[in-house]
Amino acid sequence: MRYSSLPLAPGANMSFEKLDALGHQLEALDHALSILGADEATNMAVGGGEKRAEAMSVLSGMYHRQATAPEIGDWLADAETETLNPDQQAAVREFRRVYTNLTCLPTEFVERQMTARMRSEQLWRDLRAKNDWAGFAPALEGVVALVREEAQLRADATGLAPYDALMEQYDPGNRVADVDPVFADLKLFLKGFVPEALAVQEERLRDRPLQPLGGTYPIDKQRELGLAMMAAIGFDFTHGSLSVSHHPFCGGVPTDVRMTTRYKTTDFLSALMGVMHETGHALYEQNLPKEWSHWPLGRARGMSIHESQSLFVEKQIGRNPSFWAFALPAIEQHLGERWSTADILPHVHQVERGSIRVDADEVTYPLHVILRYELEQELVSGRLNVTDIPEAWDAKMQEYLGLSTIDNPADGPMQDVHWPAGAFGYFPSYTLGAMMAAQQWHALEQAHPDIEADFANGRFDIANSWRRDHIWHQASRFSTPELLEKATGEKLNARYFTEHLTARYGRG
Amino acid sequence: MRYSSLPLAPGANMSFEKLDALGHQLEALDHALSILGADEATNMAVGGGEKRAEAMSVLSGMYHRQATAPEIGDWLADAETETLNPDQQAAVREFRRVYTNLTCLPTEFVERQMTARMRSEQLWRDLRAKNDWAGFAPALEGVVALVREEAQLRADATGLAPYDALMEQYDPGNRVADVDPVFADLKLFLKGFVPEALAVQEERLRDRPLQPLGGTYPIDKQRELGLAMMAAIGFDFTHGSLSVSHHPFCGGVPTDVRMTTRYKTTDFLSALMGVMHETGHALYEQNLPKEWSHWPLGRARGMSIHESQSLFVEKQIGRNPSFWAFALPAIEQHLGERWSTADILPHVHQVERGSIRVDADEVTYPLHVILRYELEQELVSGRLNVTDIPEAWDAKMQEYLGLSTIDNPADGPMQDVHWPAGAFGYFPSYTLGAMMAAQQWHALEQAHPDIEADFANGRFDIANSWRRDHIWHQASRFSTPELLEKATGEKLNARYFTEHLTARYGRG
Repeated sequence: MRYSSLPLAPGANMSFEKLDALGHQLEALDHALSILGADEATNMAVGGGEKRAEAMSVLSGMYHRQATAPEIGDWLADAETETLNPDQQAAVREFRRVYTNLTCLPTEFVERQMTARMRSEQLWRDLRAKNDWAGFAPALEGVVALVREEAQLRADATGLAPYDALMEQYDPGNRVADVDPVFADLKLFLKGFVPEALAVQEERLRDRPLQPLGGTYPIDKQRELGLAMMAAIGFDFTHGSLSVSHHPFCGGVPTDVRMTTRYKTTDFLSALMGVMHETGHALYEQNLPKEWSHWPLGRARGMSIHESQSLFVEKQIGRNPSFWAFALPAIEQHLGERWSTADILPHVHQVERGSIRVDADEVTYPLHVILRYELEQELVSGRLNVTDIPEAWDAKMQEYLGLSTIDNPADGPMQDVHWPAGAFGYFPSYTLGAMMAAQQWHALEQAHPDIEADFANGRFDIANSWRRDHIWHQASRFSTPELLEKATGEKLNARYFTEHLTARYGRG
Repeated sequence: MRYSSLPLAPGANMSFEKLDALGHQLEALDHALSILGADEATNMAVGGGEKRAEAMSVLSGMYHRQATAPEIGDWLADAETETLNPDQQAAVREFRRVYTNLTCLPTEFVERQMTARMRSEQLWRDLRAKNDWAGFAPALEGVVALVREEAQLRADATGLAPYDALMEQYDPGNRVADVDPVFADLKLFLKGFVPEALAVQEERLRDRPLQPLGGTYPIDKQRELGLAMMAAIGFDFTHGSLSVSHHPFCGGVPTDVRMTTRYKTTDFLSALMGVMHETGHALYEQNLPKEWSHWPLGRARGMSIHESQSLFVEKQIGRNPSFWAFALPAIEQHLGERWSTADILPHVHQVERGSIRVDADEVTYPLHVILRYELEQELVSGRLNVTDIPEAWDAKMQEYLGLSTIDNPADGPMQDVHWPAGAFGYFPSYTLGAMMAAQQWHALEQAHPDIEADFANGRFDIANSWRRDHIWHQASRFSTPELLEKATGEKLNARYFTEHLTARYGRG
């Protein structure tokens, strides 16, 4: 005999049902926008861009109109009093969070901000190439003025502090009060550790000189290698594919993930490590709970958790020596080149002080992020003005990495699109993701001490199964810090990341 | 000095402006649906189908809701009294036509019909494979009953006769009273001409035996050949592309036409002639007037005109001996096989009595269409019942082509998807298109007597320029018969098509 749940009077959850129906409408628009976006980067004819932009802008407008309709406020208030099961209650909570975030800015403000951002981003593209900070600064000033206003509007709507309210968009629950001490620990550690890692690297290379990547690696062979690694790591090719684009990304929809990479015929590691990174994002999307796919609750939690999944595959798996015991025979098979672990590791573990964030390794990367996190808080609070960014940037760059870009703003404060595009509060996600990946790795290894032997044998199912249960299937049920704590048994702690770096790059 | 048109009071064309804005919304949804449709056939992961179908169904629903909103009726009535330029007046006329066609069926009827059609189409897929007419007939009866109802509803809304009202959806202006005598002329001609063409073919093959396609033709080489032909014929690769799908099609949007083909490694003509056909459709789409792209007025006129463009390229150009003077060196270059015109023509001019419409050549094809055109009029009027189709089909098949499929309904009345899917009034478009292509060819040749010499030299610009002016740029400005008459100086006349067949396949 099978018991069913308590029967409800017909229409008892009428408001929830309206939210549910709205979810299906929004999911369809989101599906179209995601596939059109991926298609634009991979398949669109070059002359199709103008109409594509117009179509996507109209569809985004439809999405925004439907997602912010005033009656949704009433449905939410009603649904919060309806008799719902725990999943439905969680769904309403996330509907509410998204609705608040979407509706807390007045329409005239959003339009003003859109115009300022677009102008600033276009100007940035032109002037970065010309290394012209002075020409660009006034546009950025306009963006920053609006971000200050936005942060206050979001703070008013959410009851959070202004910068927290900005972070909340990308990572629900992340707060300066929690991030600051963790970043402080990390910064303190890295100031001492970067010189140590560089010295260790020098000693190792003295003992065993670097074996350069000297071959020519045909694109179709690299592609086959990438597909083989994706399949081994758990990418589901019945729900996704790999193609080529100028900027690699992981897009599409959970049932049809569109991953891309780009190839250099002189360096197979570039595409391979990129494929590993994007595969991490893809596994998260492919393993979100299908029955929630039309609710905000069913989406990936946020940027730092997403980054923790891509970095888990790229760094915890992909730069782990045990992984190469499995990967090197595949490289030999596909590229016809035999490598030893001892010769490949110096390539994937290379550490270098550089001025460009996106080119940084896992040791120096957090310092680039902390620099930005510190500066953007000052910018949002008004304690720092745009005209003073170059000096402030340079002072921190010299302090953290011993480099100066004062004469080269294109490789300094003009290197990233985030600020020109008005995305403040996003940068910390990268390093929070790296730390969360290390913390997840620690928890996984506690539960499965032989996990590295699995990798050496090309087995990733236990690692995936752990992440499926603890991260992927949870979707947006918990806030970012709650999700991490439930998964690992502990709040975010820089220790796991610093231990990971020490073991891999230190005197150990 | 430049005169501008009379200034209008602000808001004087308020209703037209509302229609114009609506057009942009609908164009965006149509863009999404077209690209999602093409993507589904060419790029979608196999497991992505269910969510894709759901997304497209929701987007189609949005399109239908927006395109049939009751206030549009008021806007149309107002816009018809506003001071508009001739293009805008034409735009309103087409908005009205589309609105009438979309709104003349009650919603409950559309839903009932959709259910019946889907059930019948699914059943057809299963039972056609099993050659089971008796099992399928009841579902088709349901569809036919609804088509009779639909034809009457459309007739009431348009003031047309029931079958005319069905044709009107596919080809505005096409009427039984005009089509009947033309088809009668054609049928009379073909009954005598098919035996003649077969006899001529036999004599020619006796003189010069058929040289079989004996090679192996790698797909990438065939693709290069196809791309070269597309480029020569005028396909704009900045606004379109060629890929592979199970069923070849021409989809996408005018600024980004998605053409597909499929390849057989044993027969290069199959893909090549398919590419020619789809290129004809593509040229029409790529050359529609861009400034009208968000109005119904800016769309291709209808199915028979569209088919006339694909057949013009496939038959008038692609099976013209002069074309092969240009194409054979390209075939040699790409496939490494040298052919003479005398040896290739018997392949592209092959005539055969067969039971399958889609496999038919240009001589016998019209008889397949006339058979269906005659039967579906009887079905719609109620003079023929579904249970009597097999006998009626067989009688005509024996009369027109000397073949019987009475024991093989899968290759008889079950061979096409049109009736199971409820698309009555569509079949005549194929043969009307073939006749219109021949009539356009005649007009072009009158204006440019040396046009075949152009083809031999790989020059298609004069042929394209004529069609751009007379067909493509006119979009939906005129009804189908008006468009043909304005382009060729004459109403539809079977004579040009029969003369074309006689010259190519007859005793000459």
